[in-house]
Amino acid sequence: MKYAVGVDIGGTTVKLGLFDENANVLDKWEIPTIKDNQGAQIVPDVAKSVLAKLAEKNIDKAEVAGIGVGAPGAVDEDGVMTGGAVNLGWPVFNLRTTLEEATGGIPVKAANDANVAAFGEMWQGGGKGYSDMVAVTLGTGVGGGIIVNGKILTGATGAGGEIGHIHLEDAETEVCGCGHCGCLEQYASATGIVRLAKRRLAQDDKASVLRSSEISAKTVFDAVKAGDEVAIEIAEKFGYYLGKGLAAVANVVNPQVFVIGGGVSKAGDVLIPFVEPNFQKYVFPPCRHAKFALAKLGNDAGIFGAAGMILKAF
Amino acid sequence: MKYAVGVDIGGTTVKLGLFDENANVLDKWEIPTIKDNQGAQIVPDVAKSVLAKLAEKNIDKAEVAGIGVGAPGAVDEDGVMTGGAVNLGWPVFNLRTTLEEATGGIPVKAANDANVAAFGEMWQGGGKGYSDMVAVTLGTGVGGGIIVNGKILTGATGAGGEIGHIHLEDAETEVCGCGHCGCLEQYASATGIVRLAKRRLAQDDKASVLRSSEISAKTVFDAVKAGDEVAIEIAEKFGYYLGKGLAAVANVVNPQVFVIGGGVSKAGDVLIPFVEPNFQKYVFPPCRHAKFALAKLGNDAGIFGAAGMILKAF
Repeated sequence: MKYAVGVDIGGTTVKLGLFDENANVLDKWEIPTIKDNQGAQIVPDVAKSVLAKLAEKNIDKAEVAGIGVGAPGAVDEDGVMTGGAVNLGWPVFNLRTTLEEATGGIPVKAANDANVAAFGEMWQGGGKGYSDMVAVTLGTGVGGGIIVNGKILTGATGAGGEIGHIHLEDAETEVCGCGHCGCLEQYASATGIVRLAKRRLAQDDKASVLRSSEISAKTVFDAVKAGDEVAIEIAEKFGYYLGKGLAAVANVVNPQVFVIGGGVSKAGDVLIPFVEPNFQKYVFPPCRHAKFALAKLGNDAGIFGAAGMILKAF
Repeated sequence: MKYAVGVDIGGTTVKLGLFDENANVLDKWEIPTIKDNQGAQIVPDVAKSVLAKLAEKNIDKAEVAGIGVGAPGAVDEDGVMTGGAVNLGWPVFNLRTTLEEATGGIPVKAANDANVAAFGEMWQGGGKGYSDMVAVTLGTGVGGGIIVNGKILTGATGAGGEIGHIHLEDAETEVCGCGHCGCLEQYASATGIVRLAKRRLAQDDKASVLRSSEISAKTVFDAVKAGDEVAIEIAEKFGYYLGKGLAAVANVVNPQVFVIGGGVSKAGDVLIPFVEPNFQKYVFPPCRHAKFALAKLGNDAGIFGAAGMILKAF
């Protein structure tokens, strides 16, 4: 039996998972992310935790095919954090070789965390069985991860798949986090949905349960499920922008499937009928067969993808 | 010395080129494309012409590393024309194995002609030295070819890189060839530029040399070079749409370079200052370093790319 370890380094905790070669999770645990001193302790802490887990499980290092690791920043093919990692305090350094040395020679593969999570969804989640996939993460922002022929599309500067900043609305006056106006993220993220909702509610006095509740992506889609007409209008606007943005993405990379994840996707299947008709309206017909699926792995997508980098050709 | 043959099958002629392993063109020739009888003669004609050329040059078949072939249709990894080729009358069949058999066993690689031309521009043209490139062909329509990590992005149904049909204009009422309204192609192709010009000229009576000449992409850009204000307004509109469309493409695949080819690109360097500022206005900042270059190989991009599939890892 061969094993692999998946590591997902976040700003608050590091998630780790021990997998067997059949993609079963044997154990799953977390350690805190210590960001002091430019995050210098993070890699040694990960190495120590992995080695302790192997000892606990009586697994010899030689039985471990490798450690996959996702980190929040641009990571090049060699494992270098080309811009460091702002959220961790990391400078530019080679994450791969540093972790290999710290573990006494276990082979490591490193990549950007969003891309790793996308890979996880393809390997064992909502995109299982597909090789050409776009992961769409609707969270605080809108992120993306593109898989072409089973491999992550990293891009020239590690910014491949940053679909949240596709420009969609010339009439927008509020500024996006990226400095431009009218990005997809301003309409399809959790915060974007709240903006759309507030704008709609300010337009007139039409009755809506949203007028007496806190407004969030969740309350909007709960109201949609309850048949609230104003909430449905808001969801239609969300679907217009997301469908149109994903049509542009499909015209470029022609995927088999879009896998929708992130906090907003917890609304579930109700989302897709707002997105897909707009997608169909704007997509180039030969690209129209792309399917829409929901992500399945939640917060575990990162450890799955990281282990998948070791257990499946990445 | 090893050789390769590049074949570019078009609706009227088949272009062929004999290359040495250092990418030198030793000979270049054409044969007519006979479309009768579902184009059944095309592959045997190509095989006959290649074998005759090898005999003429005293090259043994064993010295030929392979034949690369670009064809106008979707071609899968195995060499199957998955939708046939409408322009040639071809049904669905395996182009690769058919040409291998017809040449008595010379190895063949086959791919879509636009993608092959893009690969040619990366190998020996405007994208030389880059591995992440988007070829943009501004001809009758707007085509594209995307290269990621040195490899063509084919897409799930062979429609990867069909950037001409990215939707950019909700206010458009004329219908594009694809059946939708407001596609990039409606503004940035040769015919799109003519439409923009006619619309602008109909707006008012402002003096312009375009009022007394035939309107084409060429006359518009000639007038731009002569400082014609109306022509400059038209070029600005063209640049607005193309820059915005390519910004969306950059946010998805994060290329190092855009290589602009096709008939419209014959206008030369004058094009780029209309496109690049709009690109910068709409692109996600980490993707903004993409360069703009003009295609260099013209009609030879296809035979170069086809030979390149053999001589360089495709």
